[in-house]
Amino acid sequence: MSSIVAKNRKHLVLISGRSHEALTQAVADEIGTDLMGVDARTFANGEIYTRFEGSVRGADVFVVQSYSSPVNEWLMEQLIMVDALKRASAKRITVVMPYYPYSRQDKKGRGREPISARLVADLFKTAGADRIMSIDIHASQIQGFFDGPFDHLFAMPVLLEHFKNSLDPESLTVVSPDMGRVRVADVWSDKLGAPLAIIHKRRDPLVPNQVSVHEIVGSVAGRTCLLVDDMIDTGRTIVKAAEALKKNGATNVVVAATHAIFSDPAPEILGADAIDQVVVTDTLPLRDEQRFEKLKVLSIAPLLARAITEVFEDGSVTSMFDGAA
Amino acid sequence: MSSIVAKNRKHLVLISGRSHEALTQAVADEIGTDLMGVDARTFANGEIYTRFEGSVRGADVFVVQSYSSPVNEWLMEQLIMVDALKRASAKRITVVMPYYPYSRQDKKGRGREPISARLVADLFKTAGADRIMSIDIHASQIQGFFDGPFDHLFAMPVLLEHFKNSLDPESLTVVSPDMGRVRVADVWSDKLGAPLAIIHKRRDPLVPNQVSVHEIVGSVAGRTCLLVDDMIDTGRTIVKAAEALKKNGATNVVVAATHAIFSDPAPEILGADAIDQVVVTDTLPLRDEQRFEKLKVLSIAPLLARAITEVFEDGSVTSMFDGAA
Amino acid sequence: MSSIVAKNRKHLVLISGRSHEALTQAVADEIGTDLMGVDARTFANGEIYTRFEGSVRGADVFVVQSYSSPVNEWLMEQLIMVDALKRASAKRITVVMPYYPYSRQDKKGRGREPISARLVADLFKTAGADRIMSIDIHASQIQGFFDGPFDHLFAMPVLLEHFKNSLDPESLTVVSPDMGRVRVADVWSDKLGAPLAIIHKRRDPLVPNQVSVHEIVGSVAGRTCLLVDDMIDTGRTIVKAAEALKKNGATNVVVAATHAIFSDPAPEILGADAIDQVVVTDTLPLRDEQRFEKLKVLSIAPLLARAITEVFEDGSVTSMFDGAA
Amino acid sequence: MSSIVAKNRKHLVLISGRSHEALTQAVADEIGTDLMGVDARTFANGEIYTRFEGSVRGADVFVVQSYSSPVNEWLMEQLIMVDALKRASAKRITVVMPYYPYSRQDKKGRGREPISARLVADLFKTAGADRIMSIDIHASQIQGFFDGPFDHLFAMPVLLEHFKNSLDPESLTVVSPDMGRVRVADVWSDKLGAPLAIIHKRRDPLVPNQVSVHEIVGSVAGRTCLLVDDMIDTGRTIVKAAEALKKNGATNVVVAATHAIFSDPAPEILGADAIDQVVVTDTLPLRDEQRFEKLKVLSIAPLLARAITEVFEDGSVTSMFDGAA
Amino acid sequence: MSSIVAKNRKHLVLISGRSHEALTQAVADEIGTDLMGVDARTFANGEIYTRFEGSVRGADVFVVQSYSSPVNEWLMEQLIMVDALKRASAKRITVVMPYYPYSRQDKKGRGREPISARLVADLFKTAGADRIMSIDIHASQIQGFFDGPFDHLFAMPVLLEHFKNSLDPESLTVVSPDMGRVRVADVWSDKLGAPLAIIHKRRDPLVPNQVSVHEIVGSVAGRTCLLVDDMIDTGRTIVKAAEALKKNGATNVVVAATHAIFSDPAPEILGADAIDQVVVTDTLPLRDEQRFEKLKVLSIAPLLARAITEVFEDGSVTSMFDGAA
Amino acid sequence: MSSIVAKNRKHLVLISGRSHEALTQAVADEIGTDLMGVDARTFANGEIYTRFEGSVRGADVFVVQSYSSPVNEWLMEQLIMVDALKRASAKRITVVMPYYPYSRQDKKGRGREPISARLVADLFKTAGADRIMSIDIHASQIQGFFDGPFDHLFAMPVLLEHFKNSLDPESLTVVSPDMGRVRVADVWSDKLGAPLAIIHKRRDPLVPNQVSVHEIVGSVAGRTCLLVDDMIDTGRTIVKAAEALKKNGATNVVVAATHAIFSDPAPEILGADAIDQVVVTDTLPLRDEQRFEKLKVLSIAPLLARAITEVFEDGSVTSMFDGAA
Repeated sequence: MSSIVAKNRKHLVLISGRSHEALTQAVADEIGTDLMGVDARTFANGEIYTRFEGSVRGADVFVVQSYSSPVNEWLMEQLIMVDALKRASAKRITVVMPYYPYSRQDKKGRGREPISARLVADLFKTAGADRIMSIDIHASQIQGFFDGPFDHLFAMPVLLEHFKNSLDPESLTVVSPDMGRVRVADVWSDKLGAPLAIIHKRRDPLVPNQVSVHEIVGSVAGRTCLLVDDMIDTGRTIVKAAEALKKNGATNVVVAATHAIFSDPAPEILGADAIDQVVVTDTLPLRDEQRFEKLKVLSIAPLLARAITEVFEDGSVTSMFDGAA
Repeated sequence: MSSIVAKNRKHLVLISGRSHEALTQAVADEIGTDLMGVDARTFANGEIYTRFEGSVRGADVFVVQSYSSPVNEWLMEQLIMVDALKRASAKRITVVMPYYPYSRQDKKGRGREPISARLVADLFKTAGADRIMSIDIHASQIQGFFDGPFDHLFAMPVLLEHFKNSLDPESLTVVSPDMGRVRVADVWSDKLGAPLAIIHKRRDPLVPNQVSVHEIVGSVAGRTCLLVDDMIDTGRTIVKAAEALKKNGATNVVVAATHAIFSDPAPEILGADAIDQVVVTDTLPLRDEQRFEKLKVLSIAPLLARAITEVFEDGSVTSMFDGAA
Repeated sequence: MSSIVAKNRKHLVLISGRSHEALTQAVADEIGTDLMGVDARTFANGEIYTRFEGSVRGADVFVVQSYSSPVNEWLMEQLIMVDALKRASAKRITVVMPYYPYSRQDKKGRGREPISARLVADLFKTAGADRIMSIDIHASQIQGFFDGPFDHLFAMPVLLEHFKNSLDPESLTVVSPDMGRVRVADVWSDKLGAPLAIIHKRRDPLVPNQVSVHEIVGSVAGRTCLLVDDMIDTGRTIVKAAEALKKNGATNVVVAATHAIFSDPAPEILGADAIDQVVVTDTLPLRDEQRFEKLKVLSIAPLLARAITEVFEDGSVTSMFDGAA
Repeated sequence: MSSIVAKNRKHLVLISGRSHEALTQAVADEIGTDLMGVDARTFANGEIYTRFEGSVRGADVFVVQSYSSPVNEWLMEQLIMVDALKRASAKRITVVMPYYPYSRQDKKGRGREPISARLVADLFKTAGADRIMSIDIHASQIQGFFDGPFDHLFAMPVLLEHFKNSLDPESLTVVSPDMGRVRVADVWSDKLGAPLAIIHKRRDPLVPNQVSVHEIVGSVAGRTCLLVDDMIDTGRTIVKAAEALKKNGATNVVVAATHAIFSDPAPEILGADAIDQVVVTDTLPLRDEQRFEKLKVLSIAPLLARAITEVFEDGSVTSMFDGAA
Repeated sequence: MSSIVAKNRKHLVLISGRSHEALTQAVADEIGTDLMGVDARTFANGEIYTRFEGSVRGADVFVVQSYSSPVNEWLMEQLIMVDALKRASAKRITVVMPYYPYSRQDKKGRGREPISARLVADLFKTAGADRIMSIDIHASQIQGFFDGPFDHLFAMPVLLEHFKNSLDPESLTVVSPDMGRVRVADVWSDKLGAPLAIIHKRRDPLVPNQVSVHEIVGSVAGRTCLLVDDMIDTGRTIVKAAEALKKNGATNVVVAATHAIFSDPAPEILGADAIDQVVVTDTLPLRDEQRFEKLKVLSIAPLLARAITEVFEDGSVTSMFDGAA
Repeated sequence: MSSIVAKNRKHLVLISGRSHEALTQAVADEIGTDLMGVDARTFANGEIYTRFEGSVRGADVFVVQSYSSPVNEWLMEQLIMVDALKRASAKRITVVMPYYPYSRQDKKGRGREPISARLVADLFKTAGADRIMSIDIHASQIQGFFDGPFDHLFAMPVLLEHFKNSLDPESLTVVSPDMGRVRVADVWSDKLGAPLAIIHKRRDPLVPNQVSVHEIVGSVAGRTCLLVDDMIDTGRTIVKAAEALKKNGATNVVVAATHAIFSDPAPEILGADAIDQVVVTDTLPLRDEQRFEKLKVLSIAPLLARAITEVFEDGSVTSMFDGAA
């Protein structure tokens, strides 16, 4: 029997949703490739349409979307892109979401609530996603919501690199802004060899209802406090934490977070006197009015580019983080 | 062995998304029940949260969402509600979408396009929907996109009832505004015993590019023309059709459509002289600025209420439409 | 660690069902390969058995079946072949069905009907198909019935090539034989720069019951009429259309269709005086008694061969049709 | 909150495929109900269409098809019926197939074969079947091919009842016609307290190729031999077995089998002198030309009716067979 | 058409795995029913066999297994029971696992690890489980690992009831034994109106490698410390925590936990002087040698019985815990 | 557009569960590769943990587990490994189980039994397995329990090679130890050109209850009897068979089986006088106390190594066994 045999090449295609094209472009530049052209539009009635300008048949596709507001628009756009990729015979589809949307609704806090973070994973599976890549998800268990490979990246190396010269471990205390973030602060405390403090919001038993006091567990007087969190949304928690630290004698308060959601009134209140510096990455796009003087934005593109390259070349993402993954 | 046995009652729960609560309330009034209370909110960063205020365990739930703009917000809200219902042990979940979103992207017109209407069906299946109920979907094949029962309702009885006394079959011509809607016009033509005309958009071979003429196939001079369509979005097609009819001697032009999407500039241009009346249903909510003098809005609530009751009581939805379903 | 590494070659395997081996052989000849040997048999009680004569492990397999009568035999045979391919470790299985069976049952026209076209797509998915390839499906929405890539090919380039020299656009009118086929006729009208006419079957209000008249919308007197359809089954619709055209003064009636189902009494009545020529492709096999003098059969094998090659080599099927797919 | 509550009744609907309506009617008569009306047709090109004449919404439906030739037609018909039932909101769909089709292709005897019996189970699951009911499947493992309840019934009580008075255990030997049926014969041997014999087909080492001798393991001379099998297809195996038994001195040869497939040349050769009587059930329809003098057909309808009733009423099918199921 | 209609009764069946029959029996006693008889055996080679002694057709079945050692034996036993229930036509299968096995492997802490807690949820889904019921799962996100209803119960009301009279809030401090359990301690702190302390394990920067000191964040001197955790496995963490508390001046150390895994050397070291009392529930069976003088075991059966009853009667499990679920 | 293209290499990774590492090591030696390092542990409470020491991204992984006692431990370990492989982006996961666990529970012998062999297949599918490889499964139909490729190997060539010189066909009889194994004996009989005998366990009608006599069907006096079976578990069946053979005049009794489960009291009773030799393979590990003088263990590693290589290189497993597979 005569037989048709061909070499099996694989090629990488990088696609950007409309939420944060600058980030995907920066990733493409790092990798040394171009973005696939996409015709993406929102019709008059709000429905989204997308079409790729070149063939994706047989390609190893990475489609990047950043979950800034309006979250649901970008979610539907990425789902539609994945559906189109599946039907256009892409070989493997990796959904890159630097910030995982709905990650805070990761459990039923009360009866009859949704578990939207699981729903998001299922929606992408259904649309045709083979793999998810995300950075500093709110709870590590979210990896388990997806039935397939989930490459979990950490922004910490990027942030640590920035602080290496500017912070003195001797006078530093790592602070968790609330009970839920203690684990993250614990890792930072370990990495920096600095002691830990925790801010504990308590209801004052003498004053009824929602009123709370910010109790500081650990010593912060006369020290530089590094407040760490995975994300900053409205900024209220972090500002109250900073104020409590200053009130308790902290000399400096520096804030480090991966995801700068910066919903109102974050840009306004983060400029408060209690905070000396805010360091974030660009996993989410920031409009000009969301920026302020004390803000430092670090680029996450090199990290994403390296992870995408490792995945494409069957290398090891784990090796990027000394065994954590 | 002693044994615990109980009667197996079923109860109906009606839930409304936030897009068009007035419609769901009208349906509830028709049925004679109350809406289940829902705490539905959009957070600062755009994520949606919902929680039901009463138990839905074991219930036969109908959750209604109307796909006005912003479509993707309402889509995600309904998906989240379905997820919450599934996890809260609802017995059966019927997704009621009077207007089916993304119904116009029901095929790949060109390579590398999505089939968003199929995607929508799959997303609801994944979230936990057991059944879909919708009215006058853009293509009947969309029923086949869902792997389960799809109750397809027709607004025609409601619209016909309105025209019964006002239109004289003798002087009436049913008109399809373009090639794609000929089947709908054909059914109206049959029901009303009136002849059919079609508006054919053709590229003028003498003028290059997108320019087109509106050719009328069939006779309309001196007649009342009933332009029928399933939906009116920006209104451009329907207005151009009406103008062509008047130019060709039509005495009256009446427009009938089920879904009043009315994206800009529909409210403005539908008031044009060429159109004498526009009759629609309230499957979609209309803001005050979307209404105009020649507009007549008919209530779809009685039809939905009856269909929901038939489904709940294991009756026949088919019987509502003489065999069509 | 020592490690076993191998080159990843891909090879194409072409398999034919028993319904139309001549077509698959022609495709193989175009590609320049041989057919995989298959032992396919029908046992005394009607059950079908198939076994491949060579290894298909790791292969990119295209299994071709043509849905002539008996449709259900060929359907089960192709399903069984796909099951065997899946269990024999084929890497990718493409179901090639030049004519998509049950494509006319693509919606519930009435309550309690099946949607058999969706069922067919699901059956192949279940058996193990990764992709479907078909030509001129009855409704484009059927693409959305399959959860995966669906390569939709168009026979129009093949048919147009044939008519290029024989038809004069000046005296030509493209005719749709009924309301349901208007969209296809519209595309032909555009491609050929010829005007459009439509045949409208109407119930005569004066004569009760099923009796209908064939109203012609558009002008056909003194013109060559090209009646276009996706398929010809019993031929009754097309013959009645041709007669109506001749009665209204058409000088010539030429029929063009992709799929020649030619169920009884098609071969007999298509030879009627009203029709001057019938042009079809060989997507379906024709027995000698199904052929007649005025019939011209064009080969679809080159088109299929090119599409299969594009799929195998990760090229672009879309590019074969100027963007349509 | 006012609330709509209804009693949850369940009702039984019985539907017949076209292969063996007499059997389903007999089952309906036993149960005391009527068959649901069905419009089932085969179109000119071989495609099948079905539509139920009454509502099946919320019903507990049993759809019965008997797998006589043409097997694939009946298979597709039953699949289409199940699809229609699913889309018409039947509550539970039980596929009743007295004889399970493709049950002999239940494993890969050689490489690159299908496992069609598993495929059949998967096809019905995909179409929407909740449960399967069948009688004397060829291998008990086929129950495990379906992912859900599989009610396996035994015709033995019906057959035993017939033989109770006619066979004398003292002079009886139960015979398995080949190695593959030994287990069935073993059960009969146990039930009747009669010894066992086996017919062993062996290739004669002196004569090359397919030639075989029928060796009888066990003693049969001067005895009445009861040859038992689950099915009789072409009858060749059973006739050769009977001849061997007679040649070895058997006085009488009686054949008992559940499924009378009777493909050619069964009706002719089963009338051979070597066989004294053939007793079967009516799980499959027999045309007049398939009947012969020595044939006795027992009705399986009472057994099916009782099983359906037990399933409908949440009774126990197991209890019908003393623990076997 | 005559028609068979029946009332739709539902009945509750309670089944126990072999790991902790005393608990299931206690639940049955609370509900007022008997356990379904089960023949459950382990064969010589370690394979497990189960068979129910009565019909479960149409029943609402709750199958209870407690995940004490050997965990994998009990896991396979419960999976096999669920498979048998599915095939025996149980209507709804609720897997009751008072302690969720593998709950600590709920994320990839490092690359190439499994997410066994998700795997467990998927295995039960595959076997046929409709719902899971569990108590105080290690991370709330595990609810999201199951695609269906997950009734999450809290033992806190049972434990609080016990401490109501014995602990004085004035002199009480709630202590989290490590960073990972801070959220649980936070809830207790809130409920009891007592301050919080945390034990922070830190690597001593002066001593290389794994050596750690137990730093206490918060004040404990002169106070009664209530160490709270969801489970006690080997007891090492809790004993070291108690010792650190005593060393820092705590007057009393009381330990409260839901799940008493008590692997070696727990029973031995929990009797240490540093601990004054250990209070647990009986979600897991305790052998005599796992009990010691300072241990108090509370019955969880009433809580489980009430939750099962609410589920069976379509009541509200949420209402048992004031909105938490 | 610049483009990133890479060669698509595939590499083989071999992983061993903890049940029988010597076997996997022998396979690795045959292939000429090393085993992937695995950190596999059982925690104090019985939960299993595994982590691979090197990257498996993109690899063609074969994970081998041998189902000796404790079966359920090894089952859960292999499932966990497959889950970890899936999440670590292995390209293809082949589950190698030389002995298929729970293969004897392959059907419902009685009502309300599980079909554990199907459950096992489903559990591996859910965990992420793409393919199963096993040797001499108890019933060939088990291949159909897995929805994907199932490479079924036969140990017969290995066993036959051993007997080639030691057994004389002239004086040899192949014996099946019971009715259920007749098919296996039939194949041996054919391969060796030796006659067949069967041992038939019958209840003695004169002695009530479980008492049975071992009737020998076929002649064995003065002959060497080769008792063949797929597995030996407790050995009771085989020893009783051997005793019956000797009692009936057999001169020698040799036992051949693929899987040496050797549960108690097998090692003890297999040494009985009635048996002259026992020949098995090492699909299962044997502890020293399970070995005895008359036992001969053949290595299965070369067969497994060749099958794995054929699968990896897209060769043909079928060709290893002359068409059987």
